[in-house]
Amino acid sequence: MKKNKQPTILITNDDGIGAPGIKNLVEAVKDIGKIVVVAPDKPQSGMGHAITIGEPLRLHKTHHFEGVESYSCSGTPVDCVKLAVDKILHRKPDLCLSGINHGANHSINVIYSGTMSAAVEAAIEDIPSAGFSLLDYNIEADFSGARHFVRLIVEKMLKTPLGKHSVLNVNIPAKPLELLKGIKVCRQAYAKYEENYLQRNDPHGRQYYWLTGEFQNFDKGKDTDVWALAHNYVSVVPVQYDLTHYTYMKQLQAKWEK
Amino acid sequence: MKKNKQPTILITNDDGIGAPGIKNLVEAVKDIGKIVVVAPDKPQSGMGHAITIGEPLRLHKTHHFEGVESYSCSGTPVDCVKLAVDKILHRKPDLCLSGINHGANHSINVIYSGTMSAAVEAAIEDIPSAGFSLLDYNIEADFSGARHFVRLIVEKMLKTPLGKHSVLNVNIPAKPLELLKGIKVCRQAYAKYEENYLQRNDPHGRQYYWLTGEFQNFDKGKDTDVWALAHNYVSVVPVQYDLTHYTYMKQLQAKWEK
Repeated sequence: MKKNKQPTILITNDDGIGAPGIKNLVEAVKDIGKIVVVAPDKPQSGMGHAITIGEPLRLHKTHHFEGVESYSCSGTPVDCVKLAVDKILHRKPDLCLSGINHGANHSINVIYSGTMSAAVEAAIEDIPSAGFSLLDYNIEADFSGARHFVRLIVEKMLKTPLGKHSVLNVNIPAKPLELLKGIKVCRQAYAKYEENYLQRNDPHGRQYYWLTGEFQNFDKGKDTDVWALAHNYVSVVPVQYDLTHYTYMKQLQAKWEK
Repeated sequence: MKKNKQPTILITNDDGIGAPGIKNLVEAVKDIGKIVVVAPDKPQSGMGHAITIGEPLRLHKTHHFEGVESYSCSGTPVDCVKLAVDKILHRKPDLCLSGINHGANHSINVIYSGTMSAAVEAAIEDIPSAGFSLLDYNIEADFSGARHFVRLIVEKMLKTPLGKHSVLNVNIPAKPLELLKGIKVCRQAYAKYEENYLQRNDPHGRQYYWLTGEFQNFDKGKDTDVWALAHNYVSVVPVQYDLTHYTYMKQLQAKWEK
């Protein structure tokens, strides 16, 4: 980013362009740069890194945010980032921010989360990025603490530019600002949902299933996002997208390539 | 897995239960264990790690595979794995296999691929797994080379059990068996698609966009999946799902937690 020039910041989310979380994200940073919002026209939670291949996509200009250029997109969060770069900005923005998600995206949730997948997609496309999530699913959630830390983290990102492939997974406890202890940079906890499907019958007597699950933390480390959040810290996990298991790669090379 | 007992093998894919690829996968291993197929009822390419949260799921018993228990599922590849474990098998299978995908899933494609996301989901649920992809999108593709290597790799996986969180991303060149040079265990190449959206107008004069892209390899390493495939090797990338960027985590801890 050139000095003395306002950064261009692309904003998206997975809860849809009408969600309070994205409104709070825009408000937290709108005076820092030129903001462009491209977000899904409907909720896209749990869409992970899905992209739309077999169908065309639509973009519509909207007026959700006062004084901010914004578009709704018929696709997934990852589609929003791709389309924004190619057809709206016509260049890479200086930063991509995703969220603020209504609900946690710590530990393994980084994989299922549309919010985080949009941020990861930006990094794949050489755009530094961050995804923000508040640990409160409520549509009436209080975003004031989250806004404070979004602002702080975005200022840090702009002040000391991180690598262009860098992604931050930021989760914020649902607590009043005065109870938040600060930022903790940590690793992804080994924690996940133990799933059960609720089985029901429809009015025609046919079975259907609803996903439900209990969150379980198998990780006793004090250097994880789950630990940090439980202790009222804002967790920041730097994320990468090389999925190679290097240790295991060497073991298999020794065994299988004899 | 207990000795002298046939392993239970869960099979899924992302091209849908009627695709030739999954039929070839079933044929390649059906005499090795008790096979159960749970696969999407329609194509789900590019669905990544998407899960269905806001809608109920359906399962239907099918007869796609002779002598093999099989079900179609209305959800994503990841949904198939989750539902299969909870509502069909009622326990973890010994192995989960996904594919054989029609088209490559090397390099960054591991993130977008429904085939690979199903395999990763299995590993998250403590089930050793592998995803298989043939570098040929054609519905009439010749799977004979792929079948040979699927069999070889599954036998290796059963003979020397790998960790329960292990996932293999296997890609197979679209070449006759006699030209395939063997297995190469490698890392994920830094290669990706440079996207462009084709812009068209619908009959009502409104714009829509189709995703198109050119594959570009930015990685000159000879230890990558892209290199191996270009040299007629079957590429095997061991995959993990801890997305923490550890190097970057330490740098940020020093900078941000002062």
